[in-house]
Amino acid sequence: MDPITVYGSGAWGTTLAIHLARKGQSVCVWDKDPRQRERLLRDRGLRNALPGISLPDSVEVLYEEAVPDPRGEVILLAVPSHGLRWLLKGLPATGPRLWIIATKGLEEETCLTMSQVLADVLGDRVPGDGVLRDDGREDGVGPVVVLAGPSLALEVAQGKPSAVLAASHDEAAAALVQRLFSGEMFRVYTSGDPFGVELGTALKNVIALAAGIADGLGLGQNARGALLTRGLAEIRRLGQALGARPETFLGLAGVGDMVTTCTSPLSRNHSLGEALGRGEPLEGALSRIGMVVEGVRTTRAACTLSDRVGVELPIAGQIYRILFQGVRPAEALHELMTRPLRQE
Amino acid sequence: MDPITVYGSGAWGTTLAIHLARKGQSVCVWDKDPRQRERLLRDRGLRNALPGISLPDSVEVLYEEAVPDPRGEVILLAVPSHGLRWLLKGLPATGPRLWIIATKGLEEETCLTMSQVLADVLGDRVPGDGVLRDDGREDGVGPVVVLAGPSLALEVAQGKPSAVLAASHDEAAAALVQRLFSGEMFRVYTSGDPFGVELGTALKNVIALAAGIADGLGLGQNARGALLTRGLAEIRRLGQALGARPETFLGLAGVGDMVTTCTSPLSRNHSLGEALGRGEPLEGALSRIGMVVEGVRTTRAACTLSDRVGVELPIAGQIYRILFQGVRPAEALHELMTRPLRQE
Repeated sequence: MDPITVYGSGAWGTTLAIHLARKGQSVCVWDKDPRQRERLLRDRGLRNALPGISLPDSVEVLYEEAVPDPRGEVILLAVPSHGLRWLLKGLPATGPRLWIIATKGLEEETCLTMSQVLADVLGDRVPGDGVLRDDGREDGVGPVVVLAGPSLALEVAQGKPSAVLAASHDEAAAALVQRLFSGEMFRVYTSGDPFGVELGTALKNVIALAAGIADGLGLGQNARGALLTRGLAEIRRLGQALGARPETFLGLAGVGDMVTTCTSPLSRNHSLGEALGRGEPLEGALSRIGMVVEGVRTTRAACTLSDRVGVELPIAGQIYRILFQGVRPAEALHELMTRPLRQE
Repeated sequence: MDPITVYGSGAWGTTLAIHLARKGQSVCVWDKDPRQRERLLRDRGLRNALPGISLPDSVEVLYEEAVPDPRGEVILLAVPSHGLRWLLKGLPATGPRLWIIATKGLEEETCLTMSQVLADVLGDRVPGDGVLRDDGREDGVGPVVVLAGPSLALEVAQGKPSAVLAASHDEAAAALVQRLFSGEMFRVYTSGDPFGVELGTALKNVIALAAGIADGLGLGQNARGALLTRGLAEIRRLGQALGARPETFLGLAGVGDMVTTCTSPLSRNHSLGEALGRGEPLEGALSRIGMVVEGVRTTRAACTLSDRVGVELPIAGQIYRILFQGVRPAEALHELMTRPLRQE
């Protein structure tokens, strides 16, 4: 098969390139940041994010300064969410192609999911849900497949078992991505709800912040179980109001991703929450963690979406107050715990 | 209010007695085991299971050898699942009463839930679902409320926050139990699906065993997220086929209890699984843990139920092979990971 071009060589993009190369797929990677490109060329790996993991020889690192044209028909997008729009504007949009979106998160200003940003930039937005459909291909834009699910990069790179989703309105494209990525230790299920998958994947980071805060406050495992349950319920309500399928949130991009992210010391969102719970101020914790913490901007987007469709998000609302209004974590928790009691 | 009589003073029964007493409720507890009664009388607590926690003075320990009659109108059942039938046979079944079931698990020989065992013994089984209804009261049997959800006893005793369910076909009875137990750190939601709540609470122990095994094998957080997701799906399929409401499994007695149990070092099911995953033989691990591990008998019951209604349980099936057929955990996992790929 033609080479696959991976845009974005953070931990996840690099891991997916390594995974494909190990399967015998020809891969090239490019990153906007020249230091990141140099690191990959020099070290053939990412010593901090992926210690002990080397790029197979067959992975080509593209060194162009400007966004390079893709080397084949398949594009894998793995840049940070705030960089996707810029990247897409630099890519030629013509020709039949398969777009695989591995970038997670919502665009902060617009609250769009990554496939909605893609549709927006490529001018092929479908009214209603804003998601590209199979027929986008007729306009010169290939089908879009979202790759998501519980997948901490380091574990995948280490060959530990994972199960993820290839989600698309185009069944054949989802099946193609399933075949492309599947291995014994990397199981790929298909889904027909890319929008729900993207929402679940993004919004779970808000609950991971909350779970981290609870852990920082020393609240224990019962509180964690309750928080994840109620968090899942509010994400599901919001997703359903926005047009996602409610059952998507019970799957790998909902429950699964949430469990992995909320209970892992490798999750940045959880770590940030834990620091806040212990009383560290936001600025200090963010600069100490020193990486993008998607959950912070996702909390803002979640609250905007919640206002837009009139769905109450008790947990996200309290996280917003902690992050942006200086409310103490213990006080926000107290508010959550003293809401009126109801039916489940 | 009249005293509440708690039958069974293991960690959970004792914790609930303490919780009620702290709320000013008059409580008495009884245990079948004379050593357990002596421990409570002498130490006013359970040093091993609930270190640092004392019975409030207002908790009365009943010392009768035979099953004592309840001291008031409300009975709280917290004996181990295999002891409930025996206990109920020793209790007078007449008079209007509120039965609160805090015992978790399925009866191994019959695969009945605890409220079904109660209905069976008290001769008031409703055809169809086997669950007592409100009208049971007319026959001299009061309404039944199941109390369940993510609630590690030690954390509740320590006053850490929890959220649980009071589930009953009798709304008024569920609301009464909600008022009886609610406190700022112990939130009680009501549910109208006691059967689903009992099933979720019991079956999650099978998934906790699986999660423990995965941890013992060092499979990581991605595998845990995938396992819980697929485990939830199979529990939900089975529950639905048996007549439970599918949404119950998304709530505190499904997702919530599963998250707490599968990620806690305090869970015996998880600990047993971890030992098995590390290669310890079942007998040795069971005698070292030295307490009842509900998940072992629940795995057997789950597989029986699965045969009965023809619902496939891939995870429970592999756990069965590990527990009862000597299959190595790594091999059982390999089977799970190489099943044909499908839609989620």
